[in-house]
Amino acid sequence: MGEDEARACLAVAHRLADAVRPLGLRHFRSAALSVEDKSAADAAYDPVTQADREIERAMRDILATERPEDGILGEEYDARPSRSGITWVIDPIDGTRAFLCGLPNWGVLIAANDGARPVLGIMDQPFTGERFVGVLGGRATFEHRGAARGMATARTDRLSDALLCCTDPGVFGTAPERAAFDRMRERVRMTRYGTDCYGYALLAMGQVDLVVEASLKPVDIQALMPVIQAAGGLVTDWQGGDPQHGGQVVAAATETLHAAAISVLNGA
Amino acid sequence: MGEDEARACLAVAHRLADAVRPLGLRHFRSAALSVEDKSAADAAYDPVTQADREIERAMRDILATERPEDGILGEEYDARPSRSGITWVIDPIDGTRAFLCGLPNWGVLIAANDGARPVLGIMDQPFTGERFVGVLGGRATFEHRGAARGMATARTDRLSDALLCCTDPGVFGTAPERAAFDRMRERVRMTRYGTDCYGYALLAMGQVDLVVEASLKPVDIQALMPVIQAAGGLVTDWQGGDPQHGGQVVAAATETLHAAAISVLNGA
Repeated sequence: MGEDEARACLAVAHRLADAVRPLGLRHFRSAALSVEDKSAADAAYDPVTQADREIERAMRDILATERPEDGILGEEYDARPSRSGITWVIDPIDGTRAFLCGLPNWGVLIAANDGARPVLGIMDQPFTGERFVGVLGGRATFEHRGAARGMATARTDRLSDALLCCTDPGVFGTAPERAAFDRMRERVRMTRYGTDCYGYALLAMGQVDLVVEASLKPVDIQALMPVIQAAGGLVTDWQGGDPQHGGQVVAAATETLHAAAISVLNGA
Repeated sequence: MGEDEARACLAVAHRLADAVRPLGLRHFRSAALSVEDKSAADAAYDPVTQADREIERAMRDILATERPEDGILGEEYDARPSRSGITWVIDPIDGTRAFLCGLPNWGVLIAANDGARPVLGIMDQPFTGERFVGVLGGRATFEHRGAARGMATARTDRLSDALLCCTDPGVFGTAPERAAFDRMRERVRMTRYGTDCYGYALLAMGQVDLVVEASLKPVDIQALMPVIQAAGGLVTDWQGGDPQHGGQVVAAATETLHAAAISVLNGA
């Protein structure tokens, strides 16, 4: 992707994120969920699914107008094949469980993939007004209430100094995965659960040092890859390979820390 | 505590929360933590401890002027005995691990205890600008960016419909505690970790239905009790007794759900 094309795509990504902010907020902490009997309400009104669909539809409508040749890989509707080589990879609400609980730890994920890799990504948090942006080979920026600043990962090289994030111990579906994560927990300074996309965004910001997860979908990770990479971090699968297809993912603040994490995950 | 006294204390509690908002934010996501080597930085600058102390000192200063006869039970400094019968129970930063990670899931906790129980409480989140307020026998309110609204717990009666929050599986220090929590997790609709004071606040708001924890300190729970109780919820220890001294705590949206939770925690 050329520089002009990247700039154009980044502008589109911001417009997508801007457009859907009010949609997620309309359903977040909605009274309908909190007052009705949940089991009855489920059948009639599921705020997460509703918000998920509205957000993805709104983004698809904008892309159909502005980028009709590009493909779309989303969560709620069928993939649209790309005729331009570029595919938008979107997760309307990453962290649906956080959303359902009224916690702010969810985000709208938007990536543009050039056919080989995600080249730009946005994580937007409508409730707090935070936006984490990354362009591969370019800058990582944090925007909050009209102010923007660059982001860089922490210079943490040692596992024993590292703050580790993970969405939930339940993401590790197999006994070897659980054993690998347990080894990791024992080596780090601190582990924090309940983070979803926020963990990766805060790694880019230099606040946490490691994220280790499994069972991810491509839409869960692609938007976060350029954010982390542009901030100086690394994100791979547990073997050190390309993580864009999801599954087991490890993100780290530095090369040294990443190597140490890969080694622990694989049995060291 | 009479109505006039309660009103006066509530006004003081709001002033305390207002006064310390900028103090927490000054250290939250501070660059000093993110760029320096953490182990070296630790010795010189611990942003959580620094913020904790500044916030508690600021609140103690205000209380010394406005409520010189009242006692203070805090986290960082010695308890001040009460001459009025009223004691302020304050946790400058509940959720220090969230704070350290740059996550918004922390809060400033302020309670006024009349000698028998906490009669009013505030959970304030400076970064999001959220404030959860409760007056025992009065109202529970949620304030956010200049708007205020009443809060009520959800009407969830069945464990199988319940959203359960807990800060971390590590809060359960004994095998029986872990077994009790595992039984609970198996019975509920969903479990979310990483919540600290936010879980209790969102229970008052009707977003989640249960919080089950252990190893709490008095300052971790007292401010949250009036918030939950004024919203229609229940908060006790695992035996159904007074939770103000901390330890094992269960908070529930309804009486029926609370009874079911107590039963599961005690072996059913």
